[in-house]
Amino acid sequence: MPVKPAFVRIPLPAHAASARASLEFNGKDFHVIGGPCSVESEAQFQITADAVKRSGANLLRGGIYKLRTNPESFQGLGEQSWDFVRKVCRETGMPLVTEVTDPRQIEAMTEFVDVFQVGTRNMYNYALLKELGLAGKPVLLKRAFSATLDEWILAARYVTREGNPNVILCERGIRTFEPAFRNTLDLSAIPYVKARSEFPIIVDPSHATGIREFVAPMALAAIAAGADGLLIEVHPDPALALSDGPQALDFPAFEALMRQIDGLCTHLGRRLVRLDPIKTASSERPSEAAAE
Amino acid sequence: MPVKPAFVRIPLPAHAASARASLEFNGKDFHVIGGPCSVESEAQFQITADAVKRSGANLLRGGIYKLRTNPESFQGLGEQSWDFVRKVCRETGMPLVTEVTDPRQIEAMTEFVDVFQVGTRNMYNYALLKELGLAGKPVLLKRAFSATLDEWILAARYVTREGNPNVILCERGIRTFEPAFRNTLDLSAIPYVKARSEFPIIVDPSHATGIREFVAPMALAAIAAGADGLLIEVHPDPALALSDGPQALDFPAFEALMRQIDGLCTHLGRRLVRLDPIKTASSERPSEAAAE
Amino acid sequence: MPVKPAFVRIPLPAHAASARASLEFNGKDFHVIGGPCSVESEAQFQITADAVKRSGANLLRGGIYKLRTNPESFQGLGEQSWDFVRKVCRETGMPLVTEVTDPRQIEAMTEFVDVFQVGTRNMYNYALLKELGLAGKPVLLKRAFSATLDEWILAARYVTREGNPNVILCERGIRTFEPAFRNTLDLSAIPYVKARSEFPIIVDPSHATGIREFVAPMALAAIAAGADGLLIEVHPDPALALSDGPQALDFPAFEALMRQIDGLCTHLGRRLVRLDPIKTASSERPSEAAAE
Amino acid sequence: MPVKPAFVRIPLPAHAASARASLEFNGKDFHVIGGPCSVESEAQFQITADAVKRSGANLLRGGIYKLRTNPESFQGLGEQSWDFVRKVCRETGMPLVTEVTDPRQIEAMTEFVDVFQVGTRNMYNYALLKELGLAGKPVLLKRAFSATLDEWILAARYVTREGNPNVILCERGIRTFEPAFRNTLDLSAIPYVKARSEFPIIVDPSHATGIREFVAPMALAAIAAGADGLLIEVHPDPALALSDGPQALDFPAFEALMRQIDGLCTHLGRRLVRLDPIKTASSERPSEAAAE
Repeated sequence: MPVKPAFVRIPLPAHAASARASLEFNGKDFHVIGGPCSVESEAQFQITADAVKRSGANLLRGGIYKLRTNPESFQGLGEQSWDFVRKVCRETGMPLVTEVTDPRQIEAMTEFVDVFQVGTRNMYNYALLKELGLAGKPVLLKRAFSATLDEWILAARYVTREGNPNVILCERGIRTFEPAFRNTLDLSAIPYVKARSEFPIIVDPSHATGIREFVAPMALAAIAAGADGLLIEVHPDPALALSDGPQALDFPAFEALMRQIDGLCTHLGRRLVRLDPIKTASSERPSEAAAE
Repeated sequence: MPVKPAFVRIPLPAHAASARASLEFNGKDFHVIGGPCSVESEAQFQITADAVKRSGANLLRGGIYKLRTNPESFQGLGEQSWDFVRKVCRETGMPLVTEVTDPRQIEAMTEFVDVFQVGTRNMYNYALLKELGLAGKPVLLKRAFSATLDEWILAARYVTREGNPNVILCERGIRTFEPAFRNTLDLSAIPYVKARSEFPIIVDPSHATGIREFVAPMALAAIAAGADGLLIEVHPDPALALSDGPQALDFPAFEALMRQIDGLCTHLGRRLVRLDPIKTASSERPSEAAAE
Repeated sequence: MPVKPAFVRIPLPAHAASARASLEFNGKDFHVIGGPCSVESEAQFQITADAVKRSGANLLRGGIYKLRTNPESFQGLGEQSWDFVRKVCRETGMPLVTEVTDPRQIEAMTEFVDVFQVGTRNMYNYALLKELGLAGKPVLLKRAFSATLDEWILAARYVTREGNPNVILCERGIRTFEPAFRNTLDLSAIPYVKARSEFPIIVDPSHATGIREFVAPMALAAIAAGADGLLIEVHPDPALALSDGPQALDFPAFEALMRQIDGLCTHLGRRLVRLDPIKTASSERPSEAAAE
Repeated sequence: MPVKPAFVRIPLPAHAASARASLEFNGKDFHVIGGPCSVESEAQFQITADAVKRSGANLLRGGIYKLRTNPESFQGLGEQSWDFVRKVCRETGMPLVTEVTDPRQIEAMTEFVDVFQVGTRNMYNYALLKELGLAGKPVLLKRAFSATLDEWILAARYVTREGNPNVILCERGIRTFEPAFRNTLDLSAIPYVKARSEFPIIVDPSHATGIREFVAPMALAAIAAGADGLLIEVHPDPALALSDGPQALDFPAFEALMRQIDGLCTHLGRRLVRLDPIKTASSERPSEAAAE
């Protein structure tokens, strides 16, 4: 069966103050989502946002609600971080991608979240997916680490059948017998999703490998396999990260990788889409200036 | 580390009209949950309830909300079945085990559900687990088909740390490379859970194998491995079942299996716990008439 | 398709001095193969052989050639142990099960080996299987830890199509994502093999779990699932074993397990087959002396 | 621990009539092995060899002994093909990569085989690996579809410790729960092997995916991840192939892919190494005629 070309639009927030009104997953444009695993503090989130934007990321990730295997582990800052998260996004002009873990969180978060991420543990949480279908915001749907490709595509349909076509899939590794990596990155998912569904697909090499030194080669491999984007964890000081530090890149490593990504995209006829710089120095933004 | 012996109590509903006030998972008593995959109609649920009770099941299962991979598949009767489900439980005196798929369903269902089942796809849905911890009713927590044993035990702690100690684990097969079965039943989970946690554990050989003819040998193997109970799908006419027919037993097959289960439990020093018969003949059911 | 009942005959060696001429896998008789992972010395092999026979094992295992992941690990005593292995078998009257790892070993070993074991790493070694088909001795074919059930049955046919029908399958756990055990024991293999092939099937709970404390429950579960026998590692002092010590039972644990096995077999209508005692006291062994 | 850079040399046969005496896996040169799954006839092998060489492959694959799951499947032409295989290699000047399945085959095949391939089912066949270590010819060691990365590296050491350092690893997909592909290609193997061992590594996207349309994207992804080469199945008419037709490329598809491979190698600083053309036109082949 012929599949219509993937096309998903992420409206840019007003504060992005950009010539472009949206980011498009259109088969040509390539997008990098960068940021920390968890939002840990205003300072940590602010400097990371600045750094990833400067290097060429056009979406900012940051976990506010974390799903952790152990109920005693750090579960994210939650609502107490909302104010400064909003502020950081406004000041950097970056659209926010963050995970939602409960259908009851969606309504309040819709105001400041640009893309709702559904984590690997919630891919089968159809109650959550239906609610996101109704909410209308773009959805980044991670593959469950145990989901077949067809189950994943069907899960995305729980969103689209409620009227929301803006679903992006994210491959992040599956669970296998191999102990060397946190997960086994399944890059064959990329051409499969493109051949058998209407959804764009990006790759998260950070969670897939769980090991910093293997992020770059797998990121480049994902591009060569036809991915539409990447989700990469970046932290100002990975050794101090509250979650998943061993897989986070520091700023110089991210900057170096972005240069390789840019070159490879160009070679393959893809275009790495950067956000415009904020028009004026953040000084012109009186509210932020005041806040400082 | 020494582990305190598993002990979970399921209060029996008033209508059970039984000498016993509760079912106990105490390391000696053995419990069989029988019933259809999905509640399909009052007639189907009523005759199945009668049949499984007669054969020795002491808990009645029946799916009201179904999690289906394909959003176009039958999703369960939902709220429209509540009235007759309640009636069937009252008339047979059987406590009800049914799946909950959304934290927002819990409050209304608490009145007539005796054990909330969390399905394999929701084991990592910690928002749901926390809510069940607060709700207080016993919880039957199925293992995610991709969960390690330690992840599963930790998931149970999302319930218990909210103050609800009544969690029973249910092994139902894991996802492997083997295509012959729906899942690969991991019976080594039984001694592991008993050695490393405080939770009782039962086994669902129906979902594990997905094939009727293999349910009985795996049920018996589970008992020999030390399980505290079984969850078995039974349908009056499996060929007509709206979901999972190929793995359901018909009434004679269930009756035959229950005799084997009873014998093996006795040999191994376990006691198959049956409910008392309803005081009046089930053909007349004056007590239920009076209750209405 | 109807499958003819499994029937495999293992001729007993002359020195077994037994009323019975062979061990039969006939659907009723139950067989336990006991012994060390590796043959380490004459003393170790002799006292283990005595102990496992006394407890009711009717076949003696002992690795002479070991397949080890690391080429620097202990690879078995090899040819230097042949003389005393032969002597121990003769003196105890026990038939020997040992692994063959190279088609060029078969000819010389045929004289003193009663059952050739093919290990999990060699299940796909079709050159070896064909040679065993020609050699004619009974074959114990372990499942590759990655083999589907149908691949395993087809591998057995590489032996039988050369004219040797005496193949016994041995389930020993498959490789999955679960890290708690060395392998995941797939007991559903038992009813599947019986329903879909002509081969008897036994279970090795020692390699499956890799942990001593879980051997007994999985052994009993295997019997309840319909297995025709068990392969259990026993060592006089597991802490000193040259290979796989953590999964070996000591003599008292093996003796205790054999009593449980005997009881469960009897309950289920199976018969644990013991060898006759050697006619004269093993301390004197005049018959063996005469035989020399 | 620092790992010395991968360096493996494959001596070119005299008939290659090339300016270069060997192919080197040196971290810069990139090598493509092309050819049919099975050698089926002189005509099929000849035209495939011509085509893959013309497109830029520098090693010729062709299965003479096939390992097939079902003993009734086509097992390869075996010895009857040796004469024409030798002839084709001589006439095209291509070095031959072919699978060996039994240690007893090695001696006779050494004369005309340039690289001995060990298939996925034989990675744990240490008797075979040791014999190849002694034989001295370069070895292409495929990963068992169930092998951990560390097991694979250790298997290679069974060859090198016998004195043969020329081992090239080949990732060809692992066995997972995913049914969409024949195997799950694990490209993270590439940076892992490079970081943790001394061996070069190539990728076989044909067996990994099992589906023609997915060979090209995975081949390119392998290059981007740092692979040193590719093994690609090519057949003059895949629909008629005696084995694995659905994954074979026809000549135009291979030619198109080779152009993409060349471009990507160049972009990434790798050099696709081509063989020199045979001195005389292949249509006339007087030198070969003379050689006979």
